[in-house]
Amino acid sequence: MPFKIAILGTGNVGYHLARRLKEVDHEASMVIGRDAEKARSMVETLSLNSAYTSETNFSETPFDFVLLAVPDKAIEEVISRYRFHKNTVIIHTSGAQPLDLLKGVAHCGVLYPFQTFTKNKPVDFEQIPLLIEGNSEQSVSKILELATLFGHDIHQVNSAKRLKIHLAAVFASNFTNYLYTIADDILKDTGLQLSDLNHLMQETVEKAIELNPRMAQTGPAIRHDEEVIQKHLNLLERHPDYKTIYTIISEQIGLLNKK
Amino acid sequence: MPFKIAILGTGNVGYHLARRLKEVDHEASMVIGRDAEKARSMVETLSLNSAYTSETNFSETPFDFVLLAVPDKAIEEVISRYRFHKNTVIIHTSGAQPLDLLKGVAHCGVLYPFQTFTKNKPVDFEQIPLLIEGNSEQSVSKILELATLFGHDIHQVNSAKRLKIHLAAVFASNFTNYLYTIADDILKDTGLQLSDLNHLMQETVEKAIELNPRMAQTGPAIRHDEEVIQKHLNLLERHPDYKTIYTIISEQIGLLNKK
Repeated sequence: MPFKIAILGTGNVGYHLARRLKEVDHEASMVIGRDAEKARSMVETLSLNSAYTSETNFSETPFDFVLLAVPDKAIEEVISRYRFHKNTVIIHTSGAQPLDLLKGVAHCGVLYPFQTFTKNKPVDFEQIPLLIEGNSEQSVSKILELATLFGHDIHQVNSAKRLKIHLAAVFASNFTNYLYTIADDILKDTGLQLSDLNHLMQETVEKAIELNPRMAQTGPAIRHDEEVIQKHLNLLERHPDYKTIYTIISEQIGLLNKK
Repeated sequence: MPFKIAILGTGNVGYHLARRLKEVDHEASMVIGRDAEKARSMVETLSLNSAYTSETNFSETPFDFVLLAVPDKAIEEVISRYRFHKNTVIIHTSGAQPLDLLKGVAHCGVLYPFQTFTKNKPVDFEQIPLLIEGNSEQSVSKILELATLFGHDIHQVNSAKRLKIHLAAVFASNFTNYLYTIADDILKDTGLQLSDLNHLMQETVEKAIELNPRMAQTGPAIRHDEEVIQKHLNLLERHPDYKTIYTIISEQIGLLNKK
């Protein structure tokens, strides 16, 4: 018997969860949004058969799961404002928030899809780790079943570990993206643009994974090439913020290869 | 008539240049190394028909090109120590060094293959930008011909622009690699490892190129999510260096989306 799944939230994450469920022929039975119009629009965009609503009382609606796809800060408010059937498993999808945030809910857990989501850019759920947690053995086993609909790389991790993994992702994704912003800025008026660095950036990822990033480290800082470092710093004279970042990261890289 | 090309240097870059020339059936006629044994070993490893030597006087040997594949710091010394035929075009392959470094050489230039090189990991020269420069129109046109042997994405840029491009690459490659080191470190004891972040890292590269990194920025810092930022900083309590990097980059990302 297929699960009855509700998705609460019509942003990026809600969109991709709904899209994935449709992809595996297991559509959400309902999309719930604070703004009914946005819920309708998501259902239409994805050509879902799901109902949509801005109602908040589902105490008589026996969903198997409600997936909370709302901003971290909204999770607590949602829990206090909505009513769900006592058997429904309420699941948040945040990397940084503990399971504790759902305390008071009889059956609850976490399903954190470990990827960066952008509307309209499909996510290959088969390839991404799904980090799950539950407040009881029963919840865990149900969430595990649910997670297998989304993908196959499933890891059961507690809230403390999930927060660490989320932090690692911030360094490996949010912060690297910011370094790409700096690179893009520096490339102005050089005739090259960030897309010309595509293969360099891809190769850097591949090397880090294949060799381990400590082994893969190259560049002037690891060679203690003070002359090149000074030339770079001169170029950054008018960008004190970039200069600070350059200096700090170069110092740290230098420590990996102490003279 | 095929060019007579010598490769001077038996490290990473020399290896990949020699490998590429063989790939396009245009082998280097000679591999020159300070250590004849290393030159021999490179020729053998790549099954080249090239001669190898540790000689320094080539004033009677009319190479069309000598490609200097030596560390940045060694370029000047090589120029003073070696003798080449007056018609030979001497080319360095550094991103950070100006053409000026070869002043005094009648025909000279730069061919900077814009990629990170690792021994034994083949580089797809067709895909990477080749940045060239020459000290005269005649040198430029000869270096352009040489560059087409290596690849097709050729850009003529002066030394100042090449240094900027090199700096951009340091941010987009060397520094991102260091952030992967931090991520790898943070992941210890979580059950996940850096390879589990592979798809996240790849997707981050793709999004930055497709959307521009300013548009692609996600994470707690761009949302000014102080609660999550504080949780992350708490996790980094025992890593003051990582904490400093986290704080500075988060502040900068925050400025992209001023409250």
